[in-house]
Amino acid sequence: MSEKRQKKQKKFKPKARVPRGFRDIAGAELALQNAMLSTIAKVYEQYGFDNLDTPAFEYADALGKFLPDAERPNEGVFALEDDDGQWVSLRYDLTAPLARYVSEHYERLPKPLRRYQAGYVFRNEKPGPGRYRQFMQMDADTVGAASAMADAEICMMAADCMRALGLETDDFIVRINDRKILDAVLEITGLSRNDEDYEDRRLIILRAMDKLDRLGISGVRELLGAGRKDESGDYTKGAGLTPEAINTVCDFLNARQDNREATLDAIEKIVGGIECGQEGIRELREMNTLFSSLGYGDDQVTFDPSVVRGLGYYTGPVFEIELTFEALNDDGEIARFGSVGGGGRYNDLVKRFKGIEVPATGISIGVSRLAAALSLRGTFSEHETKPLIVALVMDREYRAQTAQMVQRLRQDGLRAEMYMGDSGMKPQLRYADTRGARFAIIEGEDERARGVVTIKDLALGAAKSADITDNTEWRESQHSQHEVKRQDIVAEIKKLLS
Amino acid sequence: MSEKRQKKQKKFKPKARVPRGFRDIAGAELALQNAMLSTIAKVYEQYGFDNLDTPAFEYADALGKFLPDAERPNEGVFALEDDDGQWVSLRYDLTAPLARYVSEHYERLPKPLRRYQAGYVFRNEKPGPGRYRQFMQMDADTVGAASAMADAEICMMAADCMRALGLETDDFIVRINDRKILDAVLEITGLSRNDEDYEDRRLIILRAMDKLDRLGISGVRELLGAGRKDESGDYTKGAGLTPEAINTVCDFLNARQDNREATLDAIEKIVGGIECGQEGIRELREMNTLFSSLGYGDDQVTFDPSVVRGLGYYTGPVFEIELTFEALNDDGEIARFGSVGGGGRYNDLVKRFKGIEVPATGISIGVSRLAAALSLRGTFSEHETKPLIVALVMDREYRAQTAQMVQRLRQDGLRAEMYMGDSGMKPQLRYADTRGARFAIIEGEDERARGVVTIKDLALGAAKSADITDNTEWRESQHSQHEVKRQDIVAEIKKLLS
Repeated sequence: MSEKRQKKQKKFKPKARVPRGFRDIAGAELALQNAMLSTIAKVYEQYGFDNLDTPAFEYADALGKFLPDAERPNEGVFALEDDDGQWVSLRYDLTAPLARYVSEHYERLPKPLRRYQAGYVFRNEKPGPGRYRQFMQMDADTVGAASAMADAEICMMAADCMRALGLETDDFIVRINDRKILDAVLEITGLSRNDEDYEDRRLIILRAMDKLDRLGISGVRELLGAGRKDESGDYTKGAGLTPEAINTVCDFLNARQDNREATLDAIEKIVGGIECGQEGIRELREMNTLFSSLGYGDDQVTFDPSVVRGLGYYTGPVFEIELTFEALNDDGEIARFGSVGGGGRYNDLVKRFKGIEVPATGISIGVSRLAAALSLRGTFSEHETKPLIVALVMDREYRAQTAQMVQRLRQDGLRAEMYMGDSGMKPQLRYADTRGARFAIIEGEDERARGVVTIKDLALGAAKSADITDNTEWRESQHSQHEVKRQDIVAEIKKLLS
Repeated sequence: MSEKRQKKQKKFKPKARVPRGFRDIAGAELALQNAMLSTIAKVYEQYGFDNLDTPAFEYADALGKFLPDAERPNEGVFALEDDDGQWVSLRYDLTAPLARYVSEHYERLPKPLRRYQAGYVFRNEKPGPGRYRQFMQMDADTVGAASAMADAEICMMAADCMRALGLETDDFIVRINDRKILDAVLEITGLSRNDEDYEDRRLIILRAMDKLDRLGISGVRELLGAGRKDESGDYTKGAGLTPEAINTVCDFLNARQDNREATLDAIEKIVGGIECGQEGIRELREMNTLFSSLGYGDDQVTFDPSVVRGLGYYTGPVFEIELTFEALNDDGEIARFGSVGGGGRYNDLVKRFKGIEVPATGISIGVSRLAAALSLRGTFSEHETKPLIVALVMDREYRAQTAQMVQRLRQDGLRAEMYMGDSGMKPQLRYADTRGARFAIIEGEDERARGVVTIKDLALGAAKSADITDNTEWRESQHSQHEVKRQDIVAEIKKLLS
């Protein structure tokens, strides 16, 4: 580098900061995420799903977001123009890449295709508290299976995942509905597919139903009728349904009973007269047969008319994994977690590419959100890394011997390191504390002369270690430390850990 | 969606294809990559390194690529302008994000920081055969340790990783050199840091030395002298060294001896008179002490004067993991793999951000490249997924019973699924074949009447299965299949697998 360029660079000192809406993950949180991914992967694998990894980029047209007139398309996706003039976008979910993959390799793929995929997805949205622009999803989909058996299997697998993650059956519930049944309810309210404003009014009604959890039945009634003013004074226009139609929708929303059969009977009373309603009921009954045969009780899998599942592309059964436990967050407040995943049947997956309908169903687990919940609950502990042992360096010229001791610890499966910095005793102990190490091992001149090493249990003595400033003081403080013969170090540490 | 917009979308049918220079990873290759990552992570963890995950994006200025005048910066990185006007880029390696992370959290981090990270990195370069724009790296770095002990540890850990991946000590070698020694050689050839063209000539000489493997010593001599014309007729300008200087460089390149001590003595004879040469020798001797104490022989870790390690930002020891075995590739040609990772000491990591020097050393393993090598060698088999069992659906009305059987197989830890499609016998068997299933289980009307199921071993009978068209023909073909009592299915499959 020329001197001139060096000077120019010296002047510019960028501020080190993570980009807006992104974050680093480290420590226990990352370990938890990794353990969750591998636990869920094991369940998916056990069910016969195969792993797939697609690249972060897809062609913008393949993602189904079309280029606006503007220079850079920027609506919800991160997109850029490749040097050959084609626009590429970072995936915003794992379903659109699956559609591209299936369409690209349709002929050679097994049918049904059972694939699972974990990966980061990207949303070019305004970030907020707990709302990031990159997050982890873990999906499983069965592509090419029209039967509701495939939907039922996905729901049971979702329940299995939750249990594999250490949740009890009363900690979560898989709630299921069917888009065909929702369409039947819309038909009963007087909506007709031939109406000019069918799609718009459909969205308003579904959105209203989706808010039962938050607004309660009276809020939903307002949204189905004339409209609703919220606490802030904002007014939301209603669907303008007749009072009878509103009653029907509310009866439907309240149709959930103690058990699945009773719920289906109650729903059938409302929508049984409509063709697509019958079809939806038939699908849920088929699913129910499998749930019951395989022992998935009402405490794990339930039918719930209030499940709408966003406003996506679903065409049949839809499902949502809901966490039902509460936990205290770091601020001591009660945290509820709600939905940590969901999915459903979508038969238009590859239609955009191939012009044919391929029936598909799948689920997406929001790993980051679920991780936050599991972390507060503290029952899933697969991710706990091995306790760390830090061997302090007391005499630089004896480092090779210290390294040998550390090597022996490692060879016995323990997690151990020699201090690699150049500092004295006190910073070394502080280092071991900062690392959350369980043990510090000390072999100073005096120890070496007597063929012993000192083991300090930092979990026991953490509080006092900061006060110790030199080796003498160290030996005088007798708390949570003791000497062992050098050759007994591995056995002793193993004993202390057990 | 309005009818008009629907019509517009129907007209547009995008071609399903993966973006140029990107690829999907599936099947055995993905399983291998995942198993490698987890094996390497275990070694890094054992050494006391902690996992870190940084986002895919960094601010462009933090990555050290500066914005060109053009609308979009496009030199080697994928970059885009965020809606607040700041440019963000996808990381091109895992070291630049580490620099940002360390600088951002410097005060609270343990020192030394020992972090490892696996992740995809992105290069906005012209793709070619086997050359992708997204690939996986797995790094480990010790930040804040000046001692060559830290470099030695990284090299031994790299050797441990290779052995954990199933390689023998004669399958790989960690080759080590020191930038200070290279600088001393440059000084001997007459280069002076005060020269106007020091950097340019330095690059030419280092690049020439780096080509010993490819061009042999005579090619390197040409590049150090007047220049070299390659087979295609292209001419590369030489460094213009004197014949004596060329002899010195070549003596140096050939200084590697049978063992590390002898190599160091030979190098010392050449560069020992130069201050930075002495310093480099001292560092390598310190590393050697540790290698010898911990039993890392010359067959695993060697000093090699011809290691240059790219032209990066290294300031001390540099190392390269080289695979030394050959294997036949899919086309029956002999494949050599060469370097599958490397690293070294770089003390300028956070200087750009904080203006202070923080000594650091680390290694990056090229997971994708190493995976290709391990796959051809076939010795690392951690990734083999469990054999798949597919239960065929013979009578739709008995699917719940079939599902129960599959559930029992799963509950015993086996990997099993019920066929989820709607096809007949032949496509179901073809499906099991395409999936690479080990067993197909059949329970037709006749079997059910007798309380038995048929197990077909597809690994044995794969060749003939395509000929079978119906159930009768199936039962008549006696190869690789047999009946067991329904309740014995789990035990029988386990017996067949063992």
